[in-house]
Amino acid sequence: MTLFADRLIDATRRHGPLCVGIDPHAGKVPALFGGDTPEGIEAWGRALVECCAGTVACIKPQVAFYERHGPEGLKALQSITRAAREAGLIVLMDAKRGDIGSTAEGYAAAFLGKDAPFEGDALTVNPYMGLDTIEPYVREAEAHGRGVIVLVRTSNPGSADFQSRSLEGAPLYARVAEAMAPMAERLKGRNGWSGLMMVTGATGPDEARTIRDLAPSSLFLVPGYGAQGASAAEALAGFVQGPGGLEGGVVSSSRGVNFPDGSGEAGDVEEWKSIISAAIAQARADLRGLPIPA
Amino acid sequence: MTLFADRLIDATRRHGPLCVGIDPHAGKVPALFGGDTPEGIEAWGRALVECCAGTVACIKPQVAFYERHGPEGLKALQSITRAAREAGLIVLMDAKRGDIGSTAEGYAAAFLGKDAPFEGDALTVNPYMGLDTIEPYVREAEAHGRGVIVLVRTSNPGSADFQSRSLEGAPLYARVAEAMAPMAERLKGRNGWSGLMMVTGATGPDEARTIRDLAPSSLFLVPGYGAQGASAAEALAGFVQGPGGLEGGVVSSSRGVNFPDGSGEAGDVEEWKSIISAAIAQARADLRGLPIPA
Repeated sequence: MTLFADRLIDATRRHGPLCVGIDPHAGKVPALFGGDTPEGIEAWGRALVECCAGTVACIKPQVAFYERHGPEGLKALQSITRAAREAGLIVLMDAKRGDIGSTAEGYAAAFLGKDAPFEGDALTVNPYMGLDTIEPYVREAEAHGRGVIVLVRTSNPGSADFQSRSLEGAPLYARVAEAMAPMAERLKGRNGWSGLMMVTGATGPDEARTIRDLAPSSLFLVPGYGAQGASAAEALAGFVQGPGGLEGGVVSSSRGVNFPDGSGEAGDVEEWKSIISAAIAQARADLRGLPIPA
Repeated sequence: MTLFADRLIDATRRHGPLCVGIDPHAGKVPALFGGDTPEGIEAWGRALVECCAGTVACIKPQVAFYERHGPEGLKALQSITRAAREAGLIVLMDAKRGDIGSTAEGYAAAFLGKDAPFEGDALTVNPYMGLDTIEPYVREAEAHGRGVIVLVRTSNPGSADFQSRSLEGAPLYARVAEAMAPMAERLKGRNGWSGLMMVTGATGPDEARTIRDLAPSSLFLVPGYGAQGASAAEALAGFVQGPGGLEGGVVSSSRGVNFPDGSGEAGDVEEWKSIISAAIAQARADLRGLPIPA
């Protein structure tokens, strides 16, 4: 069994840190695919997966956008993520679950278990309820070579309300990061990185550096790049020099690569794919510090 | 439109504060109903709803136990909650969702929106990401007369890891409670109670009293009673004297009324129902300080 951390870092060394969100925002899926219906979302998401295959390390669907359409929307999620995994893409399920004991076990089984109905390579989870509520995900991840992504410092303005305030002398987000250290050890791969990942918003590069010091082995999932306003340099603040350049996690982009200018007006799927692929190529190059393709 | 807070307090004045969890734990649904399958869960949950109708104020399904079974499990959740609402029961969706901006809007639409696929009267949400992530739920609740239930101090041992530690001079859970005050005003009913509810675990009666002082109008959702070890008196610590006795929220019980002794061995549905109804009657009486029925 190749551990999640090893698979993810290998993929980012090959393709760079870009993680493509697959987030069918209300009213945004082009009519070309069937619009804002479960069928439209499925066709759109699978086409997006085709643009990602062989080009990026991973995808990250926001489960909310599928849940909004009820069980049929969740079938679309299954179809898209299965296609992605078959295409060799790593799937980070962005569901931000969190609950106690047996309930957390239920969520862990749903996303990280053997034969999980919503099978992902990793799942985002919320630490507010405490370490015993993270444990069931870590256990499931250990058993099946998967990852757990803990919210630490998020990219939204509201991260100032609680996360950035001082909890017994250090910001709450830092307390969360330091508390996760023993769990991070348990999900460490051969390459030294851990599949106990941490969400560190690109809008807080100083905070990302603080978290890197507290959690040197944790891979980061960095939201907030692009549409939310942060630059590539800010997104990569918590990364470190690796054999082939900066490494240490993935940077997600959704709106910028899901709905780039002109994509809503594409006349057919091939035209749409060329617009999407160009947007992905641009984000990839930006995050690797390369010249942006013409 | 009757506001959620008015509907809930009226129901508890009539039936008492018991809220029945509908939590199909792995391997616990009796073979009588079809066992641990989507069909078994649906039949079991609908039978449980029949035992609750006209007897208790509300039910609370844990979404994790349905998600575990994929889209078909979530169809069972839809069937059970529709039956409950048709029977006049208030449905508190326990999904503990939490995310930023448009993603939170997706979850709010899924559970609290007009024609929501998983329509509930209220939804549990996680405050870690900040006030801007709670706002979309409050807006949807205002528009449709629903409620929002914020995690404040949970019932598990891990609540000590972050919630109980001092954030700038007061416990994090108290900071969360005080920060919610303006939102609580917006969901206030005619009776003075607010549908911006707070989760306050029965295992922390002192904490519940602290939260009551900080949030005098918020109705409480109190987990941890019964199977998790807290007594009725502890569960009601944050309640206040109302016209007909103690009031100010609901106390949930799951395992004790979902899987009481003997229920797994019932020979038929009628026998099972009489065992379940007796367990519900016992919890109801216990929470009202009445002699327990023989």
